[in-house]
Amino acid sequence: MRTSEEYLECLRAMKPNVRMAAEVVKRDHPLILPGVNVMRITYDAAEDPEQEALFTATSQFTGKKISRFCHVCQSVDDLLTKQKMIRTGARLSGFCIQRCMGTDTMNMLSIVTKEIDDEHGTEYYDRFVEFLKGYQEKDQIAGALQTDAKGDRSKRPHEQADPDSHVRVISQKKDGIIVRGAKENITMASYCDELVVFPTRTLTSDEKQWAVAFAIPADWDNVHIINRASAPRERKLLKAPLNTYGSSDAVVVFDDTFVPWERVFMCGEHEFGGRMALCFAQCHRHSYCGCKPAVDDIVMGLIALAAEYYGVEGKSHIREKLSHLAGTAELIFAAGIAGAVNSTKAASGTQMPDAIYSNVGRRLAGESTYDAWGMMADVAGGFPVTMPFEEDYYDPQTGPWMEKYTVRNPKVSAENMHRLQRTISDYLASSWAGVWQVGAVHGGGSPAMETIAILSNYDFEERKKIVKRLAGIEE
Amino acid sequence: MRTSEEYLECLRAMKPNVRMAAEVVKRDHPLILPGVNVMRITYDAAEDPEQEALFTATSQFTGKKISRFCHVCQSVDDLLTKQKMIRTGARLSGFCIQRCMGTDTMNMLSIVTKEIDDEHGTEYYDRFVEFLKGYQEKDQIAGALQTDAKGDRSKRPHEQADPDSHVRVISQKKDGIIVRGAKENITMASYCDELVVFPTRTLTSDEKQWAVAFAIPADWDNVHIINRASAPRERKLLKAPLNTYGSSDAVVVFDDTFVPWERVFMCGEHEFGGRMALCFAQCHRHSYCGCKPAVDDIVMGLIALAAEYYGVEGKSHIREKLSHLAGTAELIFAAGIAGAVNSTKAASGTQMPDAIYSNVGRRLAGESTYDAWGMMADVAGGFPVTMPFEEDYYDPQTGPWMEKYTVRNPKVSAENMHRLQRTISDYLASSWAGVWQVGAVHGGGSPAMETIAILSNYDFEERKKIVKRLAGIEE
Amino acid sequence: MRTSEEYLECLRAMKPNVRMAAEVVKRDHPLILPGVNVMRITYDAAEDPEQEALFTATSQFTGKKISRFCHVCQSVDDLLTKQKMIRTGARLSGFCIQRCMGTDTMNMLSIVTKEIDDEHGTEYYDRFVEFLKGYQEKDQIAGALQTDAKGDRSKRPHEQADPDSHVRVISQKKDGIIVRGAKENITMASYCDELVVFPTRTLTSDEKQWAVAFAIPADWDNVHIINRASAPRERKLLKAPLNTYGSSDAVVVFDDTFVPWERVFMCGEHEFGGRMALCFAQCHRHSYCGCKPAVDDIVMGLIALAAEYYGVEGKSHIREKLSHLAGTAELIFAAGIAGAVNSTKAASGTQMPDAIYSNVGRRLAGESTYDAWGMMADVAGGFPVTMPFEEDYYDPQTGPWMEKYTVRNPKVSAENMHRLQRTISDYLASSWAGVWQVGAVHGGGSPAMETIAILSNYDFEERKKIVKRLAGIEE
Amino acid sequence: MRTSEEYLECLRAMKPNVRMAAEVVKRDHPLILPGVNVMRITYDAAEDPEQEALFTATSQFTGKKISRFCHVCQSVDDLLTKQKMIRTGARLSGFCIQRCMGTDTMNMLSIVTKEIDDEHGTEYYDRFVEFLKGYQEKDQIAGALQTDAKGDRSKRPHEQADPDSHVRVISQKKDGIIVRGAKENITMASYCDELVVFPTRTLTSDEKQWAVAFAIPADWDNVHIINRASAPRERKLLKAPLNTYGSSDAVVVFDDTFVPWERVFMCGEHEFGGRMALCFAQCHRHSYCGCKPAVDDIVMGLIALAAEYYGVEGKSHIREKLSHLAGTAELIFAAGIAGAVNSTKAASGTQMPDAIYSNVGRRLAGESTYDAWGMMADVAGGFPVTMPFEEDYYDPQTGPWMEKYTVRNPKVSAENMHRLQRTISDYLASSWAGVWQVGAVHGGGSPAMETIAILSNYDFEERKKIVKRLAGIEE
Repeated sequence: MRTSEEYLECLRAMKPNVRMAAEVVKRDHPLILPGVNVMRITYDAAEDPEQEALFTATSQFTGKKISRFCHVCQSVDDLLTKQKMIRTGARLSGFCIQRCMGTDTMNMLSIVTKEIDDEHGTEYYDRFVEFLKGYQEKDQIAGALQTDAKGDRSKRPHEQADPDSHVRVISQKKDGIIVRGAKENITMASYCDELVVFPTRTLTSDEKQWAVAFAIPADWDNVHIINRASAPRERKLLKAPLNTYGSSDAVVVFDDTFVPWERVFMCGEHEFGGRMALCFAQCHRHSYCGCKPAVDDIVMGLIALAAEYYGVEGKSHIREKLSHLAGTAELIFAAGIAGAVNSTKAASGTQMPDAIYSNVGRRLAGESTYDAWGMMADVAGGFPVTMPFEEDYYDPQTGPWMEKYTVRNPKVSAENMHRLQRTISDYLASSWAGVWQVGAVHGGGSPAMETIAILSNYDFEERKKIVKRLAGIEE
Repeated sequence: MRTSEEYLECLRAMKPNVRMAAEVVKRDHPLILPGVNVMRITYDAAEDPEQEALFTATSQFTGKKISRFCHVCQSVDDLLTKQKMIRTGARLSGFCIQRCMGTDTMNMLSIVTKEIDDEHGTEYYDRFVEFLKGYQEKDQIAGALQTDAKGDRSKRPHEQADPDSHVRVISQKKDGIIVRGAKENITMASYCDELVVFPTRTLTSDEKQWAVAFAIPADWDNVHIINRASAPRERKLLKAPLNTYGSSDAVVVFDDTFVPWERVFMCGEHEFGGRMALCFAQCHRHSYCGCKPAVDDIVMGLIALAAEYYGVEGKSHIREKLSHLAGTAELIFAAGIAGAVNSTKAASGTQMPDAIYSNVGRRLAGESTYDAWGMMADVAGGFPVTMPFEEDYYDPQTGPWMEKYTVRNPKVSAENMHRLQRTISDYLASSWAGVWQVGAVHGGGSPAMETIAILSNYDFEERKKIVKRLAGIEE
Repeated sequence: MRTSEEYLECLRAMKPNVRMAAEVVKRDHPLILPGVNVMRITYDAAEDPEQEALFTATSQFTGKKISRFCHVCQSVDDLLTKQKMIRTGARLSGFCIQRCMGTDTMNMLSIVTKEIDDEHGTEYYDRFVEFLKGYQEKDQIAGALQTDAKGDRSKRPHEQADPDSHVRVISQKKDGIIVRGAKENITMASYCDELVVFPTRTLTSDEKQWAVAFAIPADWDNVHIINRASAPRERKLLKAPLNTYGSSDAVVVFDDTFVPWERVFMCGEHEFGGRMALCFAQCHRHSYCGCKPAVDDIVMGLIALAAEYYGVEGKSHIREKLSHLAGTAELIFAAGIAGAVNSTKAASGTQMPDAIYSNVGRRLAGESTYDAWGMMADVAGGFPVTMPFEEDYYDPQTGPWMEKYTVRNPKVSAENMHRLQRTISDYLASSWAGVWQVGAVHGGGSPAMETIAILSNYDFEERKKIVKRLAGIEE
Repeated sequence: MRTSEEYLECLRAMKPNVRMAAEVVKRDHPLILPGVNVMRITYDAAEDPEQEALFTATSQFTGKKISRFCHVCQSVDDLLTKQKMIRTGARLSGFCIQRCMGTDTMNMLSIVTKEIDDEHGTEYYDRFVEFLKGYQEKDQIAGALQTDAKGDRSKRPHEQADPDSHVRVISQKKDGIIVRGAKENITMASYCDELVVFPTRTLTSDEKQWAVAFAIPADWDNVHIINRASAPRERKLLKAPLNTYGSSDAVVVFDDTFVPWERVFMCGEHEFGGRMALCFAQCHRHSYCGCKPAVDDIVMGLIALAAEYYGVEGKSHIREKLSHLAGTAELIFAAGIAGAVNSTKAASGTQMPDAIYSNVGRRLAGESTYDAWGMMADVAGGFPVTMPFEEDYYDPQTGPWMEKYTVRNPKVSAENMHRLQRTISDYLASSWAGVWQVGAVHGGGSPAMETIAILSNYDFEERKKIVKRLAGIEE
């Protein structure tokens, strides 16, 4: 397995195809490093004896120990453990652990490539397994490139003025395919090893050229990563782990990119376009049932610590908020557990979490995000967002005043109060926190998408039958 | 196992100690029968080949097939199955299946009597097991007599002006004890076999006389059941299963009642008073994670059927309500599943559901009850609560008008529309529905009680540690 | 002005055309009297020196003192006073004061008949004013007959299989018109003087026969009132004012009913069908901004009194509920005030409340109803819905027990505790309360209807302009 | 009246006592200018013929035309107009118009100084009026310095380890007083003319030294402003009005500052400490009923424009959100109207908005803030927070791709789509927006403070009387 240092070396060795603010930048650019540091958490945890059991698994293909982020779930237990790992990881990184996007992509491909083969006699599954073995062996990270530019939302892919609004196959060659288009909102694109592309929606028989899935190295020719980086405000004097983490999202442009056949996992089987999209969503929504509780854990921690430091612990409005957040966190986590307990085995042997539970959990996660922030804001008070800059706490003239007027609870040092308030400030009033709040609403599909999934999977006819019997209705 | 007819015969053979509206009444009084009919569902289901697996279990004491309502859970699976049985039962009865109150009482006693013995060297557990074997053998029903009159809420039991405000031991004899006091809100008292008494709260060393638990037959000497019955409005012409079901609640007065030692399961061990109260609550709140989803199933069924019959299926406000209710139902059910998955084994071998998950699920159940009714009211429209009496639909003069003006969706007969609307009327505007709405809020403890349980069981210190690390706080 | 005794005599003198449970009944039938008693409140208040200023007004037609319920608003102040009167009335009757339905009907007719005349050169307005003068003089009560049977909701009136699904003109005669159809959900039909009919929706030029508005005495030939009565459970021993009040709703059938021209206020002017429907809704939704706060007043009173009697006053969960309800009540009332302050004068001189404010206030009223009940249930505890029947409190055997176990707060007598709990029971678990909860959702249009009204009246384009300027967008 | 250029010149002429990031900075520092630009809006509007009526008033002291921000309300109409002005101003600045903090401070002082005089025979009111005349004449801006450092929240001012935790009088001289302490969260401190200090809480007779109110020029000796500036990310290429606005908050330190008597408005009258705090809160909460609807206007505008540009206008989830936000905005605004309609005249003649309505409106504003952001996030989609930096849209290599993949609705240019999404990004994911979200929760007191105010002003006893009568309870 790879160490976090080896991972960083891999990144440094990659060809420069990342652009930011009109410049080509290195993958260890200071604005990108915070995202890299989140990835490093996952490597370090795999080496940490206390975390190893959670962060590693055994490959069913090779029997070797691998990162659980590279593992394809084989049992209820695998799903339960994945959920716990994600909660643990997100607690460490301060928000999203990111790397599960690759995990869910691999789980999805392991399911759908087999289904295509079973239907069409193709050999995508074997191809994918070969790819996956290398991916596991090299302990890699994959970005999930699902969301297309999409163009006019009221039109289907083949009706768009610009056919490239959705990534598509321009031509097929003997040794591979040429693709064109762009994928958006791609987290980790600038610091992952592999880019894995698959459709964002259902496709019709007119849309075979858009039915494409493949994986390529992130620094491949004719791939352009236009990156946006986000992180809590960098600390100059008051260093803290949180401020070393962050994330990047990108628009990834495929400018007539060649993909060799051994890396193509779907090509033209349009009826599996929607299946890939939904199957990934289902796996990823189950993962959200692990990470969003961790975000609530952090919000609860900030509220509980603020209450202690401010000397208002035990006040009824604090207790009510904490108990409400605990309820939200554990209902979401419970939905994930129920999603695992009610999971089913796909043809390939991969364990697929239940649709209803993954969706009701993920929806609650999305719906409750801004609520949690409102509670944090209420308890934190105004000062964390109006507090002077760091330097003023260390300036000979103003520093003593800041210290004098910062102390509240006499048991808490001015520095620790300062640390807490500045961290709250990062969560309440930073670009980075805004990015992830929106991510908590939209990642894996917004609440509106989960509502659609629930409505299409739930058996309302069965409920009608219950009331017909009670009412004595015979039809 | 007992048949529902045998159960009815047992009731008829009991001594008359049930009073209603200042009269001594029989246990098959027309106002009490609706509650009896709910019990019969549980007997009939045990004989129904399709339901048998859910409604029966194997006694760990005798190895015989018994009603699952008489069973003490031994495994995660037992807890999961109990939850499913309750959901199924509540769907059949139209609201609460009631009998699980006895189930949860037995589970609680199996846990706490053993714990008392381990602490005090007493022999309550063996005594209880003997009692339970007979209870299982005779396929009986037990009422859970927990809530005391309580008197002044700001005072403890031993501080009350009237010491009988909580049921207590008046004196101990060679062959048993004498008890006095009253228990309130006792569902099924007038149609159960056994009354099982246990404390409603924590007790101090000054309160040994209130630390008492026992079981006696419901028609025992010096036991008085003052009953209140509730049912949907009786149907005269438009018969429907729902209107054959109902419930009774009672004040049960112990007027210096003698209880033989072999039926006493705690007597003076005050430090286990709170344990009994909370352990029952935890078991019963887990059961609520089964029944409240069934109530949502019925509300969803009524909404979905009304939408179909009214011709407004597919409207966005209908779909939004249905998907919201599906989410609530399954989050509660998921909490029950997580409560089972995270359950622990008590010293006696009984499997105890997890505290956090049982409480977050039960709380959501309580908090969402009136919401669900609001949605039903919104979709149902005003007519179900202003519709003329049944007879006017059959009167030669007004009947044809009622038929003419009742038809909406041409595919639905006037009678079926009438049936649906009158059933909705029972749910929206009947004393019975009001009783059970309140029951859904308070049974097993109101949301405020679950909040207390969550706050006292949740590890907020762990959450503080997470944020201290992120903020770089060392104390 | 009429006294409440005179009103009752008028009712007794009316021809019997009220049917209930397949019988023709008198208007002072015991089940109907509770509704009559609510009307009596409005007559008594007009004679009460302390209430007179609120409950009476001066007719702009005759200069005489009249009931404010018969008054057509002429100013901002009239609208503000109407709102206060309704809040006061609903506080007295325990829920809805009902009579404002007639008030809002008269206000609507005073506006729209003038508008029809202005457009068509008809003389409806003068006709209506003549009618109104008599109505004011005789101090009468009018029912608002708006909601039609409607038939298939997906079809317009002229597309229905049965053209009578909406009340329509069968034929026009020299001296009047013949109408047929039925109106549903008609509160007060069995104890009002006049029935006033008007459309429930917009109408097209194909639907002139459905464009009809008129008033006729409630006991007119070929008018049939099929009544449903609702009241809190009748008290036998523990008499209380609340239990003397109630309501009736009816299906009113027009079986080829003749209406003389002087009582016809629209006949064929289809483009004013929707105007009448919406104008009534707007007036009536403004009235709801008066009555729903009164219902919240009662819920707050019950919660506050229960908290005092139970000895839990000042607990944080009580205070939170009370402050939340106070907020809801006053936001709704504030919307009514804003609706009055932003009102406009119609061509006839009638003051019309603002559409946006009337709708946002009414919507909150509808949305918050079941919430308020949930809070009441939470504070009340289970006992009010499981308490034994009245008689058991007075029986020689059980009475002393009920007294002994009812006392809580030692400053509160057992009788007063009993009174409070039985009244809470009436609100939480009676058919009557269910009827009015649904009424609070649907009367004047459900929240979904107010949402439509808000969306069609609100200026979203203006909001787009604000953000275009901020974003620097020029189109 | 002052022009915005003259205002800027005044700022430039002030002595440098503003510090930021350990440096003394000028008041036209690039990070401070965005706040200055918001102030300029208020000067420009007073000169704009279309806005003049709203933004100016007539001084009751001098009869001259003055800025309405310098005006003391004399009538219901003044309060209604103030509310409208604030809504208009906040729509122009993109969030908070800030200057009303001075307005509400002046209104408060005009009320309370008179009350102190009436009680103590002092002459604060005349002194204040003299000060106010100059303030109006010079068309100045005042900061409201209320929130003290406070120290240990569980202790009163005189119990603090550091007596300077609340600003206090160190000594009284013949010509004035010496004060020490710090005020926090002081918006506009670095770009206002005057700093006005007053207490943050009730005070006892042990706390006379903390009972102090005064006004001094913002660049006065021994006053130190430690500033934090916030603004949407500065635009380099895609200029927009929003990005020229912003705000500053500061810690203001009084380091033994001398205040001449003619600028002292309270000194030692401790019983008026709480009165000043609450009276300001009441005036300021009424102002929030004007500004928060404007924030909702902007959120509605962003949602409506996004829906149009994305081509999803008319979708039910969009419509539902818009109608909900319209409801929230207008309920808050209605509360302000009701607060004006129910206002009372203070002894000084100043019109004081009603406590209940100001508080219920302000509370809803605070409670609904994060909700509104959640809705915006839901509709906006993820792209506004993951979109590449500005420069990448103009780079020769990446610019054409960004253009190609940005187009959605063909009627909307790529630039306008870019403008909209970048503006949404400023609202969803910028430090500035986070600051103002928290401001919307805490400014003028958080929802928890309004709840306290509602509970202490609302007449719950009256509500108990209503239900006692209905229940037949006589005590």
